Formats: sequence, structure tokens, C-alpha cells
Amino acid sequence: MSNDNIQRRGLMLVLSSPSGAGKTTLSRMLLEADKKISLSVSATTRPMRPGEVHGKDYFFLSNEEFEKWLSQGRFLEHAIVFGNRYGTPQDLVTGALTAGQDVLFDIDWQGTHQLKMKMRADLVSIFILPPSHDELERRLTNRAQDTHDVVAARMEKAMDEIGHWPEYDYVIVNYDVQKALKEIQAILTAERLKRERQVGISDFVGKLMS
Amino acid sequence: MSNDNIQRRGLMLVLSSPSGAGKTTLSRMLLEADKKISLSVSATTRPMRPGEVHGKDYFFLSNEEFEKWLSQGRFLEHAIVFGNRYGTPQDLVTGALTAGQDVLFDIDWQGTHQLKMKMRADLVSIFILPPSHDELERRLTNRAQDTHDVVAARMEKAMDEIGHWPEYDYVIVNYDVQKALKEIQAILTAERLKRERQVGISDFVGKLMS
Repeated sequence: MSNDNIQRRGLMLVLSSPSGAGKTTLSRMLLEADKKISLSVSATTRPMRPGEVHGKDYFFLSNEEFEKWLSQGRFLEHAIVFGNRYGTPQDLVTGALTAGQDVLFDIDWQGTHQLKMKMRADLVSIFILPPSHDELERRLTNRAQDTHDVVAARMEKAMDEIGHWPEYDYVIVNYDVQKALKEIQAILTAERLKRERQVGISDFVGKLMS
Repeated sequence: MSNDNIQRRGLMLVLSSPSGAGKTTLSRMLLEADKKISLSVSATTRPMRPGEVHGKDYFFLSNEEFEKWLSQGRFLEHAIVFGNRYGTPQDLVTGALTAGQDVLFDIDWQGTHQLKMKMRADLVSIFILPPSHDELERRLTNRAQDTHDVVAARMEKAMDEIGHWPEYDYVIVNYDVQKALKEIQAILTAERLKRERQVGISDFVGKLMS
């Protein structure tokens, strides 16, 4: 970006979508292509799996530690999934933002809602939609042996998530993953050029005028 | 854009900068590259010049006609430059926006301010800065015979305009015209993907869910 030498505050990019809309692929592609954004590391109470690294994949906390962090207001958002607790530690995120680093969040509408309550000015939220009902159903039918009921339950969950699109800043229909990636990147470029994020512009203009 | 088949409300893109920052070149390049945006046609009381076309270059009005339009509230913004009156007719702009067409404005901070008062939600404003004081001075020194006073007066006018950067949504430093163009295009792509401009998303999601 042309304004690279101007000090900038980082931003929090949220990608949400129903499963089957391509969010995970798009997140991975974005992280590979753009070194100025990195995935938010969550804290969790679920057990560490082989190959996982504390502080890289997750911060693995005991239930007591998680409760303590929660009571200290150290989470930007938190949730329970299948009986395990997950949360986004605030200090890591705010540290990154101050350093001009962007942070990516792969979270659902409930997590987005919590982030918005606490960090509205830093948040940029994108909702990814599948191209059609049929295509979504195809993507949610993973295996030939999936029963009609299993697919129907997945579709219902997806529809529930889709209903939250009006809470997002941007909406992208994922017809083509390369096009959708380019659009996410355009949003990121644009948001980085927003006046209020370029905290160094005042200094730059000061030099320009002297 | 992937969301091309979704009905969209157009936007008003304002490019402002001091002279010497490359705005005119960037506007021309943008218009050539992107057929979904066209330059706003202003009304003016100045005489038509050879080769100019009424309704294409300007709407050429008499002073009486201009006054009448003004009293009817038909201008989004208006100004006097060197004794001639200029104004942006509202009906043309709102017609374009409703049809999903974007409109480009090459106006100064005063015009931008007037547009903002009337059309805040449709307005996207970008301020283009020159890369340095020296480079700006070079660009404002058109001819070898320019006296120090002439250049100094141009610089003072440029500095006055630059002081208005905090009133804009985005700030781009024009180090390189190709990079700056790409950044303007990224902003345009992003703004077109904003949820509130995609007025057809509700219908699209309706079909998705049925």
C-alpha cells in the first residue's frame, strides 16, 4: 500500500458465514496472501490435541483459569461450544492493533455481536453468503451416506446463521472463491486507508506543510 | 464483482486534493477503467467554449435560469468561481444512484461539505495528498519563468486545501499514480459491497432460504 510509511492502527476483520459458504478456505487464503493480518488466538478449556501448540493454536486454560480471566474482564467475547469454553483475550488484540497489525476472526454472529459492543471503531465485519440454495445443500452433503435428516438439520443451522447478514458491514456472495478473496482484500485495503485508522496522517501533513 | 446480479444503490465518490496532487489524472484513469462510474455533469453560467456539448460537458444556464434552479432547491452543491456560477443538479444524481450507477465528483472541500449535508449515506470521500512538500512544489512550478511569488501563492492555496483532509473518509498519499489508482478502485469495490448499498440482498437471501 502507498501509505505504508504512515503509522496506522490495526483493525479487527470478522468473517462470518454459515458452514458451506467457504469461509474457512477464504480465511486460509487471505492469511497466506497478506502478512499484515494474522488469526486471533483464542483461549479454550478443551484439551490440547496432538501437534497443537499453547499460545499458537490456542491458549489452553483450566476451567478455573478461564473463570478467573472472565471475571477480570479479559475476554472480548466468549462462548461455550460442546461443553468447552472459548474466549478471545483482549490484551493480545489491543496490543496488535496499537502496533498496526490486523487481526482476523473466524467467529459466528454471537461472537461478532460481543466484539461490536466492545470494539466498534476497530471492527470490520464481512458476511459470506453461498451462491444459491442448491449449491449450499450440495456443499453440506459431505458424504453419500448422509441421511436426508442430517442434511436437513445442517441446512436449518445454516439458514439460522444466514438470517444474521443484516448485522454485518459488508456482504459478499461467494460465487467464485478467487473473486471473493479479491473482494475481501479490496475491503481490507480500503479499510486500511480510512482516515481514522491512519493515526500518523497528522504528522505526515505537518511535515508536508513545513 | 461477484455480487453483480444483486440490485445495488449507486454511490457518490468525491475525489479532492490540492492542485498538483494528481487528482485530475486519477479521475480520468478511473473513468476509463470502470464503466459503472461516470463524472457528474454540473450546471454553469459560464459561456460555452468551442467543442463543448450542453448536457455532456455542462448544462449551460443563464444567470436567471441558475437562480431559478437554486431557489427551487435543485442543486446539491453550488459555488462561484471567477464570477461564474457552478452547481450539481440533484435530480440527475439521485436518478443515477437509484439505477445503481456511481457518480464521480471532482470538487473541493466546500463542495464536499455541501454534498455531505444532503447525501451523507451515499457519499464516499477520498482526499489525495502529495508525497512531499518538495514534490508538491515541483508539480506546482509549471514553467521555468514562474516567479517565486507565483509558486508561493500556489503553494499557499494548496496548503489551505490540504488542511481539510480530516473531513474525508479516506486519505491516499499519491506516491505512485498506478498504486493510488488501485487504492481508489479498492475503495470503490469495498463501498459497493457495503451491506446498506446492496438493496437487493434481502431478495437474494429470501430465495436462498426458500
